[in-house]
Amino acid sequence: MSKLYGAIEAGGTKFVCAVADEDLKVIERVSIKTTVPAETMADVFKFFEKYQTELVAIGIASFGPIDVNRKSETYGYITNTPKPGWKNYDFLGEMKKRFDVAYAWTTDVNGAAYGELKKGAAYGKDSCVYLTVGTGIGGGVVINGKVIEGYQHPEIGHIVMRRHPKDQYVGHCPFHQDCLEGLAAGPAIEARQGGIKAYDIPKDDEAWEIVAYYLAQACVDLTLILSPEKIIFGGGVSKQEQLFPMIRRSFAEQMKDYVSTPDLDDYIVHVQLGDDAGITGCLLLAKEAVEQ
Amino acid sequence: MSKLYGAIEAGGTKFVCAVADEDLKVIERVSIKTTVPAETMADVFKFFEKYQTELVAIGIASFGPIDVNRKSETYGYITNTPKPGWKNYDFLGEMKKRFDVAYAWTTDVNGAAYGELKKGAAYGKDSCVYLTVGTGIGGGVVINGKVIEGYQHPEIGHIVMRRHPKDQYVGHCPFHQDCLEGLAAGPAIEARQGGIKAYDIPKDDEAWEIVAYYLAQACVDLTLILSPEKIIFGGGVSKQEQLFPMIRRSFAEQMKDYVSTPDLDDYIVHVQLGDDAGITGCLLLAKEAVEQ
Repeated sequence: MSKLYGAIEAGGTKFVCAVADEDLKVIERVSIKTTVPAETMADVFKFFEKYQTELVAIGIASFGPIDVNRKSETYGYITNTPKPGWKNYDFLGEMKKRFDVAYAWTTDVNGAAYGELKKGAAYGKDSCVYLTVGTGIGGGVVINGKVIEGYQHPEIGHIVMRRHPKDQYVGHCPFHQDCLEGLAAGPAIEARQGGIKAYDIPKDDEAWEIVAYYLAQACVDLTLILSPEKIIFGGGVSKQEQLFPMIRRSFAEQMKDYVSTPDLDDYIVHVQLGDDAGITGCLLLAKEAVEQ
Repeated sequence: MSKLYGAIEAGGTKFVCAVADEDLKVIERVSIKTTVPAETMADVFKFFEKYQTELVAIGIASFGPIDVNRKSETYGYITNTPKPGWKNYDFLGEMKKRFDVAYAWTTDVNGAAYGELKKGAAYGKDSCVYLTVGTGIGGGVVINGKVIEGYQHPEIGHIVMRRHPKDQYVGHCPFHQDCLEGLAAGPAIEARQGGIKAYDIPKDDEAWEIVAYYLAQACVDLTLILSPEKIIFGGGVSKQEQLFPMIRRSFAEQMKDYVSTPDLDDYIVHVQLGDDAGITGCLLLAKEAVEQ
């Protein structure tokens, strides 16, 4: 009997579920709206039930915060989310009740980072950081070929920022005000310009220099702490192509050649798998969960 | 025949070399002054030659910057140091010419971090950060039980800092001026006080609040990026015991409860092995190099 692998990329607006064969070729893939657990998960269960007899593992990459600490009593839970119904939801536990298979469990961004490492922009490498810059900023990290899970998971979007000297915007993070996310995510970019939508801000507007400065500063700290082989940007804001040369230039200015990195054009790069990064990562992690 | 393991903790002022038995009990340990390679290394070779027939592996944790990238042509070199004679010194290569054993090769701070993880303050954990705060600031990281080596090694001392609102000191880092090391290492603490030695600054002086703020800020970024189970402080400055409660308090203020951490008294802690951390880490890494 052939073996099948399952994947769930659980996002705040939709859950993408997929089933793939032993070569990780996707057989079926569905998108399910994220509403409340009773509804959304019923559809998830129904999707995988069709494949129940052949399914050997499921990789789950979930929106967070989630509990990834295996020593914790709430391992496998979505924890402190404001999303109605999902707070303290035992995601992994509910899956295990229905499907007696091997599991991988990590954050949405770790899943995407792993997908990009194995099949995307960081193919052939052992380490990468994946940063998604959109309505928020999230980061996934792979080091020595494994996603980072320590006491909990990275929350790179909230690192402390040195202010750009020309930036007067107060920041919009409800926790830290002017952390990375508070200064460089989509809502911050728009609020700084008095509500002008990001795609309406001229590409040569100084606003982008400021955004690039913060994203570059994040790259500097990530480089000094993790020394990854690639830093990969995804998410809506990263579709502003003009940002990439600006981020690289600002990175060089801030780093002052202190440590060696790959050539910057090859180091600070675009996501390659796009919307497939997460599902790809989940399937790979599912397969590895069986092999372990 | 019994197996022996060797260790070299190569520092800027001294090299500590040790040989241990299969239980990693140290048989002999010497301290060699760091002068130029021809002198220092001659003594290192002489020390290990006595044990040559039984030696199966040597773990080296070296001052840096060093090349830890196995795909690099200069893997095993000390690279860009200002230390006379050591720039581009093929440390690992010279060792291999003399002793045909297994090797582990990493930074001095990674070695100490690994020692603290396996036998010290982070015993029983899978991850920790070790920060040494003295004349400079260096950091070693263990994640998923392995020291971080990506494109190169971490250089945590140089991460970007948001300035403390009361701090007027310009910073002393020759590269970045007011990075973490430029604002919180020993020379910065003394220069900020107009040259008063750190141990002469009263323990209730506001100067320590400023230092604690920067060290706490580093802990915030390290937590958000790495989510380690312990952050361990060593080095001369960390002997100022009054700093620890201040760092924990400032950490809580800056983090604003955004992510869960262990209880702070148990999270931001003192080095436990002290001067033995590095050698302990080297011996453990040597043993693992054989087992791999």
